[in-house]
Amino acid sequence: MLFKELIRKKRDGGELSKEEIEFIVSSYTKGEVPDYQMGALLMAIYFQGLSYEEMLHLTDSMLKSGKTVTVRTNGILVDKHSTGGIGDKVSFIISPTLAELGFKVPMLSGRALGFTGGTVDKLESTGARSELSEEEISEITEKFGFSISAQTKEIAPADRKIYALRDATETVESIPLIVSSILSKKLAVNTEAIVFDVKVGSGAFMKTEEKAEELAKGLVEVAKLYGKKAGALITEMSQPLGRYAGNALEIKESIDALSGEIEKDLLEVTASLVGLLFELTKKGSFKEGKKKAEEVILSGKALDRFLSWLEYLGGNPEVKVAEKKILVKAPTSGYISNINGEALGYLIVELGGGRKRAGERIDHSVGLGFLKKIGDYVERGEPLGEIYYTFGDPEELTGKFLSAYSFSEVPCPKPTLVKKVLV
Amino acid sequence: MLFKELIRKKRDGGELSKEEIEFIVSSYTKGEVPDYQMGALLMAIYFQGLSYEEMLHLTDSMLKSGKTVTVRTNGILVDKHSTGGIGDKVSFIISPTLAELGFKVPMLSGRALGFTGGTVDKLESTGARSELSEEEISEITEKFGFSISAQTKEIAPADRKIYALRDATETVESIPLIVSSILSKKLAVNTEAIVFDVKVGSGAFMKTEEKAEELAKGLVEVAKLYGKKAGALITEMSQPLGRYAGNALEIKESIDALSGEIEKDLLEVTASLVGLLFELTKKGSFKEGKKKAEEVILSGKALDRFLSWLEYLGGNPEVKVAEKKILVKAPTSGYISNINGEALGYLIVELGGGRKRAGERIDHSVGLGFLKKIGDYVERGEPLGEIYYTFGDPEELTGKFLSAYSFSEVPCPKPTLVKKVLV
Repeated sequence: MLFKELIRKKRDGGELSKEEIEFIVSSYTKGEVPDYQMGALLMAIYFQGLSYEEMLHLTDSMLKSGKTVTVRTNGILVDKHSTGGIGDKVSFIISPTLAELGFKVPMLSGRALGFTGGTVDKLESTGARSELSEEEISEITEKFGFSISAQTKEIAPADRKIYALRDATETVESIPLIVSSILSKKLAVNTEAIVFDVKVGSGAFMKTEEKAEELAKGLVEVAKLYGKKAGALITEMSQPLGRYAGNALEIKESIDALSGEIEKDLLEVTASLVGLLFELTKKGSFKEGKKKAEEVILSGKALDRFLSWLEYLGGNPEVKVAEKKILVKAPTSGYISNINGEALGYLIVELGGGRKRAGERIDHSVGLGFLKKIGDYVERGEPLGEIYYTFGDPEELTGKFLSAYSFSEVPCPKPTLVKKVLV
Repeated sequence: MLFKELIRKKRDGGELSKEEIEFIVSSYTKGEVPDYQMGALLMAIYFQGLSYEEMLHLTDSMLKSGKTVTVRTNGILVDKHSTGGIGDKVSFIISPTLAELGFKVPMLSGRALGFTGGTVDKLESTGARSELSEEEISEITEKFGFSISAQTKEIAPADRKIYALRDATETVESIPLIVSSILSKKLAVNTEAIVFDVKVGSGAFMKTEEKAEELAKGLVEVAKLYGKKAGALITEMSQPLGRYAGNALEIKESIDALSGEIEKDLLEVTASLVGLLFELTKKGSFKEGKKKAEEVILSGKALDRFLSWLEYLGGNPEVKVAEKKILVKAPTSGYISNINGEALGYLIVELGGGRKRAGERIDHSVGLGFLKKIGDYVERGEPLGEIYYTFGDPEELTGKFLSAYSFSEVPCPKPTLVKKVLV
């Protein structure tokens, strides 16, 4: 097989076979194909796309480049994956809630990169261990009903190599490549069902519903072709989710949420994802699952489970939050018509709470608070938000925070939270 | 400037500025940009194209990466460039003819690659020197009115480096990249006017008139933006041009043609190109120029000029043709409905008369003869063509020759030779 001919085939809109895709991934991973040919192929894929079958073979080839994770425990193993957004702490709330409802949740998560946070960083803000062996994952999932830990380096190394090249060749945004990249890691665990929380809006990677739906469909269809039960929600991310964004702040908020003190939007998204898992695993209807999740969360039933899990990993729930705090006041009276989530995400990066490059150290204590959301009315001078910081000029930071907000004199609708359910 | 941002700009359909294109070419030529980023950019250009302004800047940047050729001679300096085809020996006929008509023609040519021949290889089949210095080109152009020599390595080295990457990344066929590549070499010589002979059909790189016209327009428009007088003909190449294809055979045919014994198609294309140069340089109308060229060629007036030029370079007009010859006979009675020029070109490569890779040595003595063309009627067993060869199985070679021909019971029209004139 000639790599050049495969570039040409994809360039001309052809469909690559299983054998061809396996050849591409294995020869590239082994270093037998120069980066420039792989870079050209990635750009051809950017333009010509991949069919679900091609995405399946790409996913599978990248998955097979590494180790799989077999979690040995009884029960229905399920997982949740979010495409990332600002203030998205759903993993910490849904995992013990699902465990409380009888599921087993061996979740592998990533770190922050770009303008969105990472579950592993949030976990590490407590001092907890985030890197676990396959045996530990099984043991912890069995013991607590859930486990949250960092993806190991042995999972899908081909994806890591290809991702680095995508980053250098501006082919990260290709939806078929995103689908295969996510699934090559998510499908490596022996879960029965998986739900995808595909975020859409200014605070997400997918800025339009059309793109979000393309991604959601790809994730669901390819996961199903692989033999998993899969579904997706397309959820609102045109503004941050919940009350806080920032590593330690989100742990604090998660603990409050699990004790029943939860923001409406966070509850709605979390409970809906549980509903979808009920439907997929035939444990009950979407509605029943959602209702049960709400009951668990609002009653505070899952909190002890979360805290004992955290303690077991060496984490301290009393996280350290930055001492300096700015209370940002509304510069005008009116309805909040828009919040630029991405700008707020980059403000957190600037505060030191996120990463510009993989591997950078971050300050877990900084972050932002959101006292008002889209559709809310504010009086001039009324508290709008908070900035928790350790360095920087308060006036400048306030200016950046405010530049993410737009106001209107006329009432604005609150955005719909769950925009679409795909099964 | 960040190279990644330029990839993204082009990927998203944006127009690159002069400074951005200069940055791309100079940083890539200096080795400051990795091949994989350039490969991804080339593929993005393949899909998004380039505007005429962008092609101009790319041409100019590649041209400036090397030396220009200043031919010091009186008179109107003109040039002709062909996009390549089977049996295309126009350069040898048009150059002395133009000189006879008072023009000065300092032509720089290439070598064979793929299924088409190269003027320099044909010239070398006589034993003539093909590599000349800038001073020699001036001197020979002054002395004989024309000069044909190999492109020097000092011309547009950036184009050479980029071409090698295009070859490896399947981006050779991008028309804007072809335009810039051709012009980065052709515009390096101080000619006043240039005509492009854009070949279309099975024996050419451009298989459809649409593609040929896109290429012709690009060449003409960008050459004009650069400040040259320029025009193009789109000419027939669905079958070989003239009577022979192969290096030494084409030299023989050129000498016959210059003595007045010329095939009609070869005369028509050559004279039309002269006509276009008359129009462009305002030396006369297209019609007048064409008529004058026909007079010069049919009278044999330019032959002496050609022969003394060849002798001056050390070439021997008595070229060596392969001794073994197969007379291929028509396998059926009927009208020739189609000839696959590319297949015949590759047959010459197989005989040893062409190159699969740049730098390979070739056998000048082999080639093919064409006794019948599209639209001709042949009786079964009537001579159809000739194969001049030094090795190989006659039966197999005959089979390959014949597989390029299609026959029909009903009369087939002869293809129009000059399909379009662009000025």
